[in-house]
Amino acid sequence: MTPVTLIDTLGREAREAAQKLALMTTEDKAEAVRAAAQSIRESEAEILAENQKDLDNASDLPAAMQDRLKLDPQRLAGIADAADAIAALPDPVGEVIKTWEQPNGLKFERVRVPLGVVGIIYESRPNVTADAGLLCVMAGNAAILRGGSEAVHSNRALHKAIVAGLEKVGVPGAAVQLVPTQDRAAVGAMLKASGLIDIIVPRGGKSLVARVQEEARVPVLAHLDGICHVYVDGAADPDMAEKIAVNAKMRRTGICGAMETLLIDKAAIEFAPRIIRALLDEGCEVRGDVTVNGMDERVKPAAAEDWDTEYLEPIVSAKMVDGVTGAVEHIAAHGSHHTDSIITDDQAAANRFLAQVDSAIVMHNASTQFADGGEFGFGAEIGIATGRLHARGPVALEGLTTYKTRVLGSGQARPK
Amino acid sequence: MTPVTLIDTLGREAREAAQKLALMTTEDKAEAVRAAAQSIRESEAEILAENQKDLDNASDLPAAMQDRLKLDPQRLAGIADAADAIAALPDPVGEVIKTWEQPNGLKFERVRVPLGVVGIIYESRPNVTADAGLLCVMAGNAAILRGGSEAVHSNRALHKAIVAGLEKVGVPGAAVQLVPTQDRAAVGAMLKASGLIDIIVPRGGKSLVARVQEEARVPVLAHLDGICHVYVDGAADPDMAEKIAVNAKMRRTGICGAMETLLIDKAAIEFAPRIIRALLDEGCEVRGDVTVNGMDERVKPAAAEDWDTEYLEPIVSAKMVDGVTGAVEHIAAHGSHHTDSIITDDQAAANRFLAQVDSAIVMHNASTQFADGGEFGFGAEIGIATGRLHARGPVALEGLTTYKTRVLGSGQARPK
Repeated sequence: MTPVTLIDTLGREAREAAQKLALMTTEDKAEAVRAAAQSIRESEAEILAENQKDLDNASDLPAAMQDRLKLDPQRLAGIADAADAIAALPDPVGEVIKTWEQPNGLKFERVRVPLGVVGIIYESRPNVTADAGLLCVMAGNAAILRGGSEAVHSNRALHKAIVAGLEKVGVPGAAVQLVPTQDRAAVGAMLKASGLIDIIVPRGGKSLVARVQEEARVPVLAHLDGICHVYVDGAADPDMAEKIAVNAKMRRTGICGAMETLLIDKAAIEFAPRIIRALLDEGCEVRGDVTVNGMDERVKPAAAEDWDTEYLEPIVSAKMVDGVTGAVEHIAAHGSHHTDSIITDDQAAANRFLAQVDSAIVMHNASTQFADGGEFGFGAEIGIATGRLHARGPVALEGLTTYKTRVLGSGQARPK
Repeated sequence: MTPVTLIDTLGREAREAAQKLALMTTEDKAEAVRAAAQSIRESEAEILAENQKDLDNASDLPAAMQDRLKLDPQRLAGIADAADAIAALPDPVGEVIKTWEQPNGLKFERVRVPLGVVGIIYESRPNVTADAGLLCVMAGNAAILRGGSEAVHSNRALHKAIVAGLEKVGVPGAAVQLVPTQDRAAVGAMLKASGLIDIIVPRGGKSLVARVQEEARVPVLAHLDGICHVYVDGAADPDMAEKIAVNAKMRRTGICGAMETLLIDKAAIEFAPRIIRALLDEGCEVRGDVTVNGMDERVKPAAAEDWDTEYLEPIVSAKMVDGVTGAVEHIAAHGSHHTDSIITDDQAAANRFLAQVDSAIVMHNASTQFADGGEFGFGAEIGIATGRLHARGPVALEGLTTYKTRVLGSGQARPK
């Protein structure tokens, strides 16, 4: 079977399953997700044995990647518990978003329905197989999963358990499909499967996301970069500014919501040095403009490309700007429309920043590390989108739905 | 200048204008749209003279196309009045769609913001230059317009008047741009201008829409086909069924919401013949399955391709089906996810149809000809979308917006 024929077959089976899922009640979907969770628990021995095969093949990989790959009883229980949590989320499907009526008596109801078939292309982390697949099911969608070759045995074992769980309660196993080949041409076929796959969500490093965005003909929900800014206004509380700047960078440096550039109002010059020193003291490398360079001898000079770099490491670029206007201009030129935060006690300055910064998430007096579906209260997320269409920011159940309009008449014909 | 460089330049100017428009108040945008309308009125002589040039060049075109092209004082006044109506529409921008709070005190506000830069690719009708361009402005977006070569003089004159009107009240003329060349490569450049153009809306015949959907890398809002169905259930009121079937087909046959296939429940066999005869009597050609063929000697046999054909003419295909299930199956196999209607007095049957038919618009006891932004009460529409993402059905001001999330804190750092 060629990759195109394979994806065509999977796509048709997924569409058929999606049509069934779309009509299931919330309780039936939740039961299916819980059954998958339970099946994962019951398959622990097999899943861990298969995971060991992946780990044996991964001995040449960096330690961090081996760690992402590794499953143990505790992590597997975490995956099953996360699935149970998904089953407990409020169901967006069926929600009537808006109703209105026209003078001719026609009633209109805009109601949420599932998106259909979601393709997920991901790397090393086997938990995505369960998290993303079951999030799709809970929103009434079928999922076509294509995991990385490092995790092929783990993914197959997890997928087998999920399908067994779904089928136990009468849900078609085709609701969650795993592409059975590691042939990269299958990814290409998924990206071009318009009409079969409704949306693609890439989960992984920048090169994966870039390839998907470049080649896909199917709409993509993703973010390529997370070049997040914290702007410390002259009217900021210095303690709060220091605390948030350090947290936004250093809590976890490898996530997309980590601050990569610190912008400091020239009016904050009095307390700017303590923020820079706090970052340095926490072990962060600071690459500064000429003014920031003068604040501590440990600061290194920033090069032009630093302002466009997502480090994902304990490195931050830092510069002085001329108030909100300067910050907004810098972010417009160098940002990635992900998450940007202003620290200030001046409400008018905050309002200007929140209105003028064109990012999926704009914050006031909060750490950019809150850019996360869980922290938003969504319970789970399938990804963070920085595009402008459909869903923006953390995407969870609601972002995996669309709507239809019901028009309810009493025999109306349209006048000439 | 190459087409790519040209679109790049237009795109950058449009983005800059869009950033200004995004921050304008509702009243300022409305004033700009009204100023454009007034400028169109004041430029009547010039616009009609330029339109005459297009008409002179169009003498070889079909009469219908010449008519679409033609402007006269009344039509031009209609264009200006439509612009004033756009200025009076409620502004979706700034609307807070949803607010919520997390236990840590973070407040979340999802607020509507403009999409950004909208590309519109259209054929012959010069009114689109004003309608689509000014609808974009009212939603806070910049528009890049590319009209058909038949209307090149009319479009340039209308565009000149619009820009003059906008600039009179201090809005950048780059808010509404007209691609200055008829080089088809410019269309190709628009379709690939990711990052410069946020969404493309094609307005025109099927071949235009197909080309745009095929080539575009920018997201497209459109419908390719409008294969709309009316399903007459056994529990339908026969008078209502006849009235709606005739209206859905014959009120206007050339619009995308016109019925193309009539599905009749086998339980409606008693009154099916009168519906078929009513269509025939109105001058509609009926292509029927074997049962429908027996109802009147004027009925022609339907071929397999009839079930997949959007006639846009006084022709309808008609067949008997086995209840709601049969109707849903036929629509799933042959529909275009546009608009489908059930006629029945059985609420349970209606509910099943409304839930199971996977179309942007599903109707009960109403004519499919209501599939229109104006009839939905949107005041204007930029198009009808049958894709699954972002906006579905008639797209108006709200469909030309996206959202951002404001996260309002009081110094929160994210715990480890």
